[in-house]
Amino acid sequence: MSEPSAAKDRHTDTRRAESFADAVFAIVITLLVLELRPPDAAPGQMLSGLLQQWPTYLAYVTSYLYIAVVWLNHKHAFLRIRWMSRGLHWANLGILFTTALLPFATALIADAMQEGNPADERTAVTVYALIGVLLCGSWVVFFRYLSHHPPLLDEGVPADFFVRETTRAWVGVILYAAAGTLGSFAAPVVALVLFFVLPAFYGITSHGLYDLGVVLRRRS
Amino acid sequence: MSEPSAAKDRHTDTRRAESFADAVFAIVITLLVLELRPPDAAPGQMLSGLLQQWPTYLAYVTSYLYIAVVWLNHKHAFLRIRWMSRGLHWANLGILFTTALLPFATALIADAMQEGNPADERTAVTVYALIGVLLCGSWVVFFRYLSHHPPLLDEGVPADFFVRETTRAWVGVILYAAAGTLGSFAAPVVALVLFFVLPAFYGITSHGLYDLGVVLRRRS
Amino acid sequence: MSEPSAAKDRHTDTRRAESFADAVFAIVITLLVLELRPPDAAPGQMLSGLLQQWPTYLAYVTSYLYIAVVWLNHKHAFLRIRWMSRGLHWANLGILFTTALLPFATALIADAMQEGNPADERTAVTVYALIGVLLCGSWVVFFRYLSHHPPLLDEGVPADFFVRETTRAWVGVILYAAAGTLGSFAAPVVALVLFFVLPAFYGITSHGLYDLGVVLRRRS
Amino acid sequence: MSEPSAAKDRHTDTRRAESFADAVFAIVITLLVLELRPPDAAPGQMLSGLLQQWPTYLAYVTSYLYIAVVWLNHKHAFLRIRWMSRGLHWANLGILFTTALLPFATALIADAMQEGNPADERTAVTVYALIGVLLCGSWVVFFRYLSHHPPLLDEGVPADFFVRETTRAWVGVILYAAAGTLGSFAAPVVALVLFFVLPAFYGITSHGLYDLGVVLRRRS
Repeated sequence: MSEPSAAKDRHTDTRRAESFADAVFAIVITLLVLELRPPDAAPGQMLSGLLQQWPTYLAYVTSYLYIAVVWLNHKHAFLRIRWMSRGLHWANLGILFTTALLPFATALIADAMQEGNPADERTAVTVYALIGVLLCGSWVVFFRYLSHHPPLLDEGVPADFFVRETTRAWVGVILYAAAGTLGSFAAPVVALVLFFVLPAFYGITSHGLYDLGVVLRRRS
Repeated sequence: MSEPSAAKDRHTDTRRAESFADAVFAIVITLLVLELRPPDAAPGQMLSGLLQQWPTYLAYVTSYLYIAVVWLNHKHAFLRIRWMSRGLHWANLGILFTTALLPFATALIADAMQEGNPADERTAVTVYALIGVLLCGSWVVFFRYLSHHPPLLDEGVPADFFVRETTRAWVGVILYAAAGTLGSFAAPVVALVLFFVLPAFYGITSHGLYDLGVVLRRRS
Repeated sequence: MSEPSAAKDRHTDTRRAESFADAVFAIVITLLVLELRPPDAAPGQMLSGLLQQWPTYLAYVTSYLYIAVVWLNHKHAFLRIRWMSRGLHWANLGILFTTALLPFATALIADAMQEGNPADERTAVTVYALIGVLLCGSWVVFFRYLSHHPPLLDEGVPADFFVRETTRAWVGVILYAAAGTLGSFAAPVVALVLFFVLPAFYGITSHGLYDLGVVLRRRS
Repeated sequence: MSEPSAAKDRHTDTRRAESFADAVFAIVITLLVLELRPPDAAPGQMLSGLLQQWPTYLAYVTSYLYIAVVWLNHKHAFLRIRWMSRGLHWANLGILFTTALLPFATALIADAMQEGNPADERTAVTVYALIGVLLCGSWVVFFRYLSHHPPLLDEGVPADFFVRETTRAWVGVILYAAAGTLGSFAAPVVALVLFFVLPAFYGITSHGLYDLGVVLRRRS
């Protein structure tokens, strides 16, 4: 078959995986925000009811940041993927599954913080950290798979690109495990600060370059 | 009209059916996971409340696997479809409808298992099996339609491809009917194990090849 | 600018309107089905609880059919649209708005039927018919706009195509108004039957041809 | 790399940002409408229950208009964007975040209006205005970023295009701040009227031209 046809196949092949993932990420990130609800307050007490929900706002901003970073990483990785295999599809579905668990963990934290029970706060930050570990772990699987299947990659992607990405994902696994341990045995608030800092850190430093840079380099 | 234009038409024609289906699958699979809710537990009892929800987790993982397999099959089939007809659209809408019923059946199972009433467990697994039968049945209709309308297919698709797919879908109908019968008359837990095993089996063995293989063979 | 570039612009222009509409339709049609919930039944009473929900199932199947027909009509119309104008965007947003009202009317009917209060049943079918009128009315606006702005259409679309579509949409307005009047003053069940028959009728007869036919005729 | 390849890259690059945004906007705008629920009325009181919900209907129409205008503006801006940078992605994610807050503010207003407590009405309109300010503010950031990064723009976009858009967004910030102040210190109903008028005004006057005009001028 001629080149244009192969290009079409390629497009078809990754296109649906990308658009499916985009839809899942969009639903998760949006429903997270839509979880915000008018407080159950007595008439005239809406303002104080809103102010008491502050841990909820913080928890949702944190998870919004996290899912946004996951989406950016996903886009970043697929910019380098040419073909999908069944195994890569399942690795991708693993990332979507663990990402979709985040709102559950976020609701646990919001509930526990508003209630103020220390045992529940420990439970909630531990579950959040556990899901953070699972999410970073699903990236480890995804990146490792890609580093072992170079024919799936776009031409011009450095051989060790996804080896380095795998290491980065392992660092995430360790950091979330550490945050969960600290939050569980020391103070839950330490874990909360780390949960906020981690995606911010990844969002800012990630890859040390702009996507624009990648594309421009490709053109030359 | 020239070739490129026909290609555009084709793209337009299956594109919306595919992106609509992707959105529906994404919503169903994501909302399934988002059904996970903080347990209604007394202060300090969040951990035990979470642990008691284990049937829910199992039910949701099972249905996530199932919907993921449906999505992979859908992508797999559309890789071989060139044109949509009105009849094919309705067959496609039938698959989307039965897939969207899965979270309902999943919630029934999760409810019945947590409550532990044997009569309700029988009802729940019977409804789940029934919807499994309907879902596989909608694939029978879809594949049969394609096997009777070769002009809708891509060039190079073997004449009997969708005949074999129809048989595979019939096997699914029979297996879900058997699982429902066993679960209803013997023990519900037998049905649950089968519900978990069936999509896993389809996910692993499906088509006996990677999508990559299909595409590469096409190129040569 | 050269032809390929114009083609890209065209694609960009209608692409987002189509993908936005696809997402809205997918959400409306899926959440409609996801409204199905385990019944609030005493332990051991799940089966009878499920059976008592039968008006709900019927109402949801009816609305699923309706939204599916709306989606097919939408795809059908956009196959003939080349450019978007701001006015056409707003006409499109009007269709999306009225379609998104259908689950509300469906829930009213399901509630009223399960409760069995005649006054509420009248209210519910009247609201459903009203939203049916609004929905068909939004198509009248959309088709009329297109029939008055031929430069927005694809080449080769017959001059009177959207004039005839406008008439078809007016027929829908009248039929839903009639169904609502009959349901409100005679028996609500008459309206329910009509609500079920109308989209089925549109789904089967619509345009009297397959999309495939359109595309093939275009190619020749 | 050759030109066609760069075009593909460009497409890939803005495509996912656009389709992700479309999905988020579609979810927000649809779930807003799906918030409409059958009233909690005694048997036979459905009609009066529905009529009492009128502030809800008004609030939802207002926010639907607002989100529709945001989506049109988004499409309008991306028609002029060629490349995404990490910074532009974050500016885009900021718009999505603030847009997703609108249903929350809308629910506050609907609740407060139905309850009729003046203090809560003040709180609700203030929160709505605040989120309006944040939303317009996120556009200021987005447009300013674009006006400072011309290499990201499509060829032929006037140098000062996004400078003027930034000014337009600042006007929105000021108008929502003014509406909130009036609603908070004078009468909440004044704010409600302004909330309805503002998106209508933006929807009608926006850019003073049709998208069609843009595309046609580009072709010549």
